[in-house]
Amino acid sequence: MSDTVLVVGAGPTGLSAAAGVASIGKKVVLVEKEAVLGGAPILSGYAKLVPSGEWAKDAIGRMVKRVEDSPNVTIHKSTKVVKVEGEAGNFTVTLSNGQSVNVGSIILGTGFTHFDSINKPEWGFGTYEDVLTTTQMEQMVSSGKIACPSDGRVPERVAILLCVGSRDRQIGREWCSKICCTVSTNLAMEIKEISPQTDVFIYYMDIRTFGLYEDKFYWKSQEEYKTKFVKARIAEVTKSADNRLLVKGEDTLVKRPIVIPMDIVVHAIGMDPSEENPELAKVFGIGLEKHGFVEKGEQYTSSFSSTRRGIYVGGAALGPEDIDTSISHGLAMAMRAVGDMNALVQKAA
Amino acid sequence: MSDTVLVVGAGPTGLSAAAGVASIGKKVVLVEKEAVLGGAPILSGYAKLVPSGEWAKDAIGRMVKRVEDSPNVTIHKSTKVVKVEGEAGNFTVTLSNGQSVNVGSIILGTGFTHFDSINKPEWGFGTYEDVLTTTQMEQMVSSGKIACPSDGRVPERVAILLCVGSRDRQIGREWCSKICCTVSTNLAMEIKEISPQTDVFIYYMDIRTFGLYEDKFYWKSQEEYKTKFVKARIAEVTKSADNRLLVKGEDTLVKRPIVIPMDIVVHAIGMDPSEENPELAKVFGIGLEKHGFVEKGEQYTSSFSSTRRGIYVGGAALGPEDIDTSISHGLAMAMRAVGDMNALVQKAA
Repeated sequence: MSDTVLVVGAGPTGLSAAAGVASIGKKVVLVEKEAVLGGAPILSGYAKLVPSGEWAKDAIGRMVKRVEDSPNVTIHKSTKVVKVEGEAGNFTVTLSNGQSVNVGSIILGTGFTHFDSINKPEWGFGTYEDVLTTTQMEQMVSSGKIACPSDGRVPERVAILLCVGSRDRQIGREWCSKICCTVSTNLAMEIKEISPQTDVFIYYMDIRTFGLYEDKFYWKSQEEYKTKFVKARIAEVTKSADNRLLVKGEDTLVKRPIVIPMDIVVHAIGMDPSEENPELAKVFGIGLEKHGFVEKGEQYTSSFSSTRRGIYVGGAALGPEDIDTSISHGLAMAMRAVGDMNALVQKAA
Repeated sequence: MSDTVLVVGAGPTGLSAAAGVASIGKKVVLVEKEAVLGGAPILSGYAKLVPSGEWAKDAIGRMVKRVEDSPNVTIHKSTKVVKVEGEAGNFTVTLSNGQSVNVGSIILGTGFTHFDSINKPEWGFGTYEDVLTTTQMEQMVSSGKIACPSDGRVPERVAILLCVGSRDRQIGREWCSKICCTVSTNLAMEIKEISPQTDVFIYYMDIRTFGLYEDKFYWKSQEEYKTKFVKARIAEVTKSADNRLLVKGEDTLVKRPIVIPMDIVVHAIGMDPSEENPELAKVFGIGLEKHGFVEKGEQYTSSFSSTRRGIYVGGAALGPEDIDTSISHGLAMAMRAVGDMNALVQKAA
């Protein structure tokens, strides 16, 4: 029997899970497939996070440092889990670096994969240089300068297209990606702050700034930063004779076709199931739900259980998720893991 | 120094916090102001919960039983906290039943108060017998019979009005209540299942079935259960000469006034800050945010901290929240509390 906890993935979910377990003196083995810790916010260079407004590198950086500084956490970077044998309380886990660890439970914070806009070709990504994704636009915000990639001019108009790779049966993405609406209303404000002469338009189906994000992001973006919200069905993004981008669609409120010339078009890309999920399902012996996210068990007295006993799953591995909730999932899984191990130890004694 | 944890509130948040702390053998004192445990889902008689589809009394009942059966949890029902002295690691807490407890940390799962529809009088609640709230409609669903309260007839049409007490600056509710959209799409399906001859209309501003709720609830309700979604601005609910309810408003998609006769009108009521929050703020010495929910501290490495050290807050006390997330907050706070106490003990030693 081991009461060491294996945490897979070092994004917000895994980092908080590792910190939680370590905080009561239990040992953690943290395995991250990338060479750096921090997950999507660090790897993709997010700018200021919602809802805190803190820079991703600072906020997530603090989470990374806490885990790196903990004497209870052993970190394996650029490493994957290749084999899991045994059962709850006594798993033998083989890593891609050749090492083997004995752990009592396993926490998966394996996250998601950003939607690849190439799969929505009619909206211009990959065709036009000035069509970007939200993560690319966040990198531009981080750089402190808003300019068209094609020629460096300051954009007069920026369009953010919501639901790229979300709520779209045509391309097999029936889910909503939960946080893109809020991220986009925030991004519009960040663009306006850096470049006051730029007007930002958000094309939407529904604005889903749920809970306290409503007035903090949606209303504020509209009222204080003059972000323009257009309820529209987008048909395509093309280019005009004078080299501007044309967003063509139907305004579903006024029931008229609209074509507004834009200088930059941003795809608010959705959250796909991690591309590694089929492999994870095989290695860890767990189920996936119909869209390809990890399947969860009962959610009231066994929250964050996967379909295999002793293996817990949370954060964006379960479906599109925001960072704050992912952090709560990580801590919650830490509690589940140490609680269940305590029960196993008591039973054995 | 004490490592006992005080948990205030026995809804989904508090019950999962108590179970978490107890799961590693630490003592919990659970204080609930009502005479029964379970919080809003039990007190208000919710029907089937989203997203599990399990009856509230079963799902939450299981959470209650686990805590009641735990030898580590002492429960005080019909009890409030009246005084808190001391500091993290050593709080002396006085209860309304005259008892005093020494605890190391305090977890607040004090929840919310349902919006009172009387505060939106032009929409007919309190005036017409057949205007109900979602919680009343859930009670009707639980009874297994859908009928107009006024005369017992089976309704030909039911209207669910979203955002009653949410996203409404006129009445001082600027926030979105997060889960009413999903609950309402689910309620429409439950009504249709019991009463197939009833047509259900949902009047909305935006449909916010975020994440995996999109196809599981919104699309399913629309496609399989033929729920009709009307994007509208509601002006008032009145009564026709033949005694039916008239929902008057403007269809914002076709830009025309609409008046559809209904037999039952349901207010999808929002989540207000707990009416006890001003008192809680005083007793526990914590801050409230601008809407009146409990103020939270840093959310990356100190998630669920309140503004006072050693006191944690989560669930709907922080803002409108769904049950699954509230459960994750409860477990996360349990982890925070036992982790921080462990650090205090080590520091003292």
